[in-house]
Formats: sequence, C-alpha cells, structure tokens
Amino acid sequence: MDMMYFCLVPKLWNDTIDAHRHAVREAVLDATAALVSEHGPTSVTMSQIAQETGIGRATLYKYFPDVEAILAAWHERQVREHLRQLELIRDQAGSAERRLEAVLESYALMSRGHEATALATLVHRSEHVTDARHQLAGFLQTLIAEGAAAGELRDDVPPQELAAYCLHALAAADSLRSKAATRRLVKVVLTGLHPPT
Amino acid sequence: MDMMYFCLVPKLWNDTIDAHRHAVREAVLDATAALVSEHGPTSVTMSQIAQETGIGRATLYKYFPDVEAILAAWHERQVREHLRQLELIRDQAGSAERRLEAVLESYALMSRGHEATALATLVHRSEHVTDARHQLAGFLQTLIAEGAAAGELRDDVPPQELAAYCLHALAAADSLRSKAATRRLVKVVLTGLHPPT
Repeated sequence: MDMMYFCLVPKLWNDTIDAHRHAVREAVLDATAALVSEHGPTSVTMSQIAQETGIGRATLYKYFPDVEAILAAWHERQVREHLRQLELIRDQAGSAERRLEAVLESYALMSRGHEATALATLVHRSEHVTDARHQLAGFLQTLIAEGAAAGELRDDVPPQELAAYCLHALAAADSLRSKAATRRLVKVVLTGLHPPT
Repeated sequence: MDMMYFCLVPKLWNDTIDAHRHAVREAVLDATAALVSEHGPTSVTMSQIAQETGIGRATLYKYFPDVEAILAAWHERQVREHLRQLELIRDQAGSAERRLEAVLESYALMSRGHEATALATLVHRSEHVTDARHQLAGFLQTLIAEGAAAGELRDDVPPQELAAYCLHALAAADSLRSKAATRRLVKVVLTGLHPPT
C-alpha cells in the first residue's frame, strides 16, 4: 500500500477496518447461533464455527478465545436486541395499561424461547443480563407509575415493588408449554396490578 | 457388656443407638446453624462445629464428610420444617382464599430469611428443595382449585398455572427490605388470583 495514500485518508481506512471487524464478529455470532440451535450449546466447537463463518481458525481466535466467549457475546446481543424491541413496544401509542400489557406479553414470550433456557446454564447471571434487567425494571416502573397516576393501576404499592413483582411472576413463563398459557400468565400478572376489589 | 443381655433386648438397644445418633446429628445441625448465623456460611470449619457440639472431630467425621454436607443436611431440615409449618397453616379453619393468603404470606416471609439467601449460593438447587417446591406447588394448586370452585378465585386459568405464578411472583420477596413490603407483595399476588374486573 502507498504510505502517502494511507496518511491522507487514515480515518476512512480505520472506519473500513472497524466495519470489517464488526461484520466478521456479527457473522461469527450468527453462525454460532445457527450451530447452537441445530446441535445444542455444548457440542459446538471453534473449528465448526470457523468453517460455518467461512474464516480461518486462526482468524477466529483473534476475535474470541473460546466458544463460551462467543456464546456470551451472542447472548449479550440477544438481550440488547430484546430490550430495544421492548422499548419500541413501550413507546407505541395507547394507555399506560395497554402498553404495559404489550411489553409484559412480549417479554414473557421472549423469556420462554428455547435458546434462552438452553443457554441459561452456560451464561449464568452475567453482568449484561443484570444490567438489562435493571433497565427493564426501570421502564416498567415508569409505565406502572403512569398507569397509577391515570387511575388505571393500583397506587397502594410503590411502582418499584410492582415492577419487581411483574418480572418475577413472568419468570413462570419458563415452565409453560404454550403461547396461550403465557398469555394467560400475563393477564394474571396484570390483574395483580389493578386496585384490589 | 453382657452378651446375653445384648441378645435379649436387641431392638431396645438398637433403638437407643438410633436415638443417640439422631440426637448427635441434630446437635451438629443446631451448632452449625448457630455458627453460620454468627460468622457466615463460608468461614465455618469442622473443628469449630465439633467444639461447639461438644464432640470429638473424629466422631464428627463419622457423621458428615465436610461442612458442605452439614449445611446441605441443615438446609434440608429447614425446608422440611417450613413445609410442615405451611401445611399446618393450610389446614386451619377458614375459606380457601383466607388460608391461601396465610400460606402465601408465611412462605414469602420464610423466603426472605437472611440464611436462605446466604445459603442459596452454597446449596444451589438441590433435590430436596425441588421436591419441596413440587409439594408446595401441589398444595397451593389444591387450595386455588377449592377457591375457584367456591367462586372466590378466578377459574379462567388452570390452578396449576396459578400455583406456578404464585411461587415465582413471591420470589420477588428476596429483594424486599421490610415485612410490610412483603405483605404488600402477597396482596398483589392474591389480587392476580381474583377474577379480572
């Protein structure tokens, strides 16, 4: 490469490298997700991932030290994407109660995804999951406070406690076999947010 | 010891040995519980436990291989006792709804015990805890079905799903600082069991 050229457009060149690295990383995560969903998370190897991504094993090791690190990065991406989806749902039009219902239902359906369960044993309670749960609890709390102020939801219990109640109760979705059962669970959780009769 | 005597009353003698072993075992569990609540579960040693119980270390090792085994046995005893207490509460007089409320409140208050949380990291999801949760879920399910039949509780969701909802939602008690907050949580969970308005 011409050194002169390199010096004139360093920013563009760096951007290109960054974009390339990002693309490789994303491709690795996608390939790993595909392998995991086909073979299960414990039987996937670095060689398979390299082959599936179409890069050399040596290159793959420059990006990730082992399969576990790839799974953790993939899981982090999933959690981030889920949170973004939930934020979009939250920001739709409608009453606080309707938006809360939509958020809770989407969250419950995401939680019962089979990858989520299979990976939970590998990824444990990692930091990004804890962060995401805090963010989610925070925005549920805001929605619940809005609903309480509008007279739609109960105001005899602090919104923070009600948000924790929602997240814990919805964890029951893990053991539910059908989407219909998950929707029933969301209705029950929402009923709990209403003023007692 | 006179062999003749031994042969004439073997059952009585065996009962005596069993009772003695049981008493030593219970004393070890009590001493360990006291040490754990004073120093935390990770800093307790076999020597301390032997000293506190008033038996020799060699004797202690005949009962338990290590501190972890003692903690597991102690935790199992706690869980069994809690379950028995909940059954007593369940079998009191009153409507299904009132008894359910009493059971849920006791369970929630037990769950937030500081030993429970400190030990959870050591004892993990052991088999006896899973068994106890199944038993508890089973008897909540029966109470909920009774309440639904009496028209006190909702009948649009299977009692099994409602029992799972209760147990998961009450896990939020872990993060609550006060008994008052725990009681609020129980009220919210119960509201969820009522027919939707």
